[in-house]
Amino acid sequence: MAHEENGYFTEENSVEVVTSRNAGARSERLKQVMEVVTRKLHEAVKELEPTQEEWMETVQFLTRTGHMCNEWRQEFILLSDVLGVSMLVDAINNRKPSGASESTVLGPFHVADAPELPMGANICLDQKGEDMVIGGLILDTEGRPIKDAVIDVWQANDEGFYDVQQKGIQPDFNLRGIFRTGKDGRYWFRAVKPKYYPIPDDGPVGQMLKALGRHPYRPAHLHYIIKADGFETLTTHIFDPDDPYIHSDAVFGVKESLLAKFELTDDPARARELGFDGKYWKVAHDFVLAPIKS
Amino acid sequence: MAHEENGYFTEENSVEVVTSRNAGARSERLKQVMEVVTRKLHEAVKELEPTQEEWMETVQFLTRTGHMCNEWRQEFILLSDVLGVSMLVDAINNRKPSGASESTVLGPFHVADAPELPMGANICLDQKGEDMVIGGLILDTEGRPIKDAVIDVWQANDEGFYDVQQKGIQPDFNLRGIFRTGKDGRYWFRAVKPKYYPIPDDGPVGQMLKALGRHPYRPAHLHYIIKADGFETLTTHIFDPDDPYIHSDAVFGVKESLLAKFELTDDPARARELGFDGKYWKVAHDFVLAPIKS
Repeated sequence: MAHEENGYFTEENSVEVVTSRNAGARSERLKQVMEVVTRKLHEAVKELEPTQEEWMETVQFLTRTGHMCNEWRQEFILLSDVLGVSMLVDAINNRKPSGASESTVLGPFHVADAPELPMGANICLDQKGEDMVIGGLILDTEGRPIKDAVIDVWQANDEGFYDVQQKGIQPDFNLRGIFRTGKDGRYWFRAVKPKYYPIPDDGPVGQMLKALGRHPYRPAHLHYIIKADGFETLTTHIFDPDDPYIHSDAVFGVKESLLAKFELTDDPARARELGFDGKYWKVAHDFVLAPIKS
Repeated sequence: MAHEENGYFTEENSVEVVTSRNAGARSERLKQVMEVVTRKLHEAVKELEPTQEEWMETVQFLTRTGHMCNEWRQEFILLSDVLGVSMLVDAINNRKPSGASESTVLGPFHVADAPELPMGANICLDQKGEDMVIGGLILDTEGRPIKDAVIDVWQANDEGFYDVQQKGIQPDFNLRGIFRTGKDGRYWFRAVKPKYYPIPDDGPVGQMLKALGRHPYRPAHLHYIIKADGFETLTTHIFDPDDPYIHSDAVFGVKESLLAKFELTDDPARARELGFDGKYWKVAHDFVLAPIKS
């Protein structure tokens, strides 16, 4: 082939000419990554045949996306999220054995040092929102309870904000907590019903969603990271299946198995025991951890 | 299929779930672009199966690339250049009829308001470098000379810098000029022999090239934009075929048909006529313009 003789680029040999330059790459993996990225990029260009103006618009979109990133905002992660890339990487890295609970995206609002709380504690520190009690079992794939499972939970408040988004408005560590199971494998805690909220949409990714006729909302959910010795760590959510955005999560995080039952409960005696006034939401959801692959 | 019922994302239906959200896109073209981009991105992820760490490295690379961009530096264009994407977009948008001169990338150093000069002028304003005289014909695809063709030329100096990169060091408009053909279709001017130079490599794209074992050099070239009524504008280079980087242009701009002959000439009488001292380089290159498609 001509490019093997002179190295010159043509429409036909474009991928081979570019990737043949990488023979001295620092690692085989890097070489492989660049081969696939170059090939898929060139395939996209050949299929779309962009004009020079469309190419420049793409350059400018990526530039604005980069300029939007700072210590507090990661616009390229948002871009990855709304294109389903984050969920795809999550899925590929978390293929679970049959019966184990499924994972979903971590999200940007986890904090590392939430307080460990006694089982049953109320993680809502400002009494705002609709009361909720939530609980279930942490099980292995044989259905046996797991002792000393550590459950890290966090959620947005009933206005759709996490504590770290409203410093000075919400108390520190509002709607966060870490719980540890006993030998019954049971967890439970009190909180408030979460609400849907938009991903940050005042940047280029938000503009892209608008141009695509897409909304920026995530359906109401609670985040969980569940760890236990001998098991794979599970990073997941549970979702309110009655949320208006449950079928159109802006970041594609919903899975059938992550839908929990949110039941509005009118039980004054139990409400009093829980420290609630009037009706409250009752949520039950079990999690099944996969054994560590040996 | 399941996703048509509930919209939930799986590894298998990932492309369909994401692109089905774009039904209300602002234009059919935008919808098509997002379909292809999403599909190729997901194909790349499925083929590479990146770890979460590799995904995060990619996010951080794109972020650094964005942060490198400012009014004077376009790191995403450099990225497009070194991946062959810029040349591919150029090729797709400039398919020429048989016999017409081929195009190549514009590059970032064109300026709009270079001076129009009399044919034969010396565009080297600081007498630095090896003297060169360059000329040829501007022809149509039937071999007929084109009158009133406007030839905009620019080049780096013999240290590999354009005037705009060395403001205060090189005179303004050094090694730039605009010439207009007479009815013989002939152009000629004097300049200095250009030299290879690196693309800006102090940013993330330069780091990527290093990791890939690639050098950042472009072989020596002159830039041309040639315009004439009734013909397609030609944006191209001519290259020195003896340049050490002629087979490995960092941005893949070289084409067989763009190689010119650079001939070291020892002709004292002609040198005196040209205002040169001693030996000089003689370059001959004709250009053939394609008629505007009707």
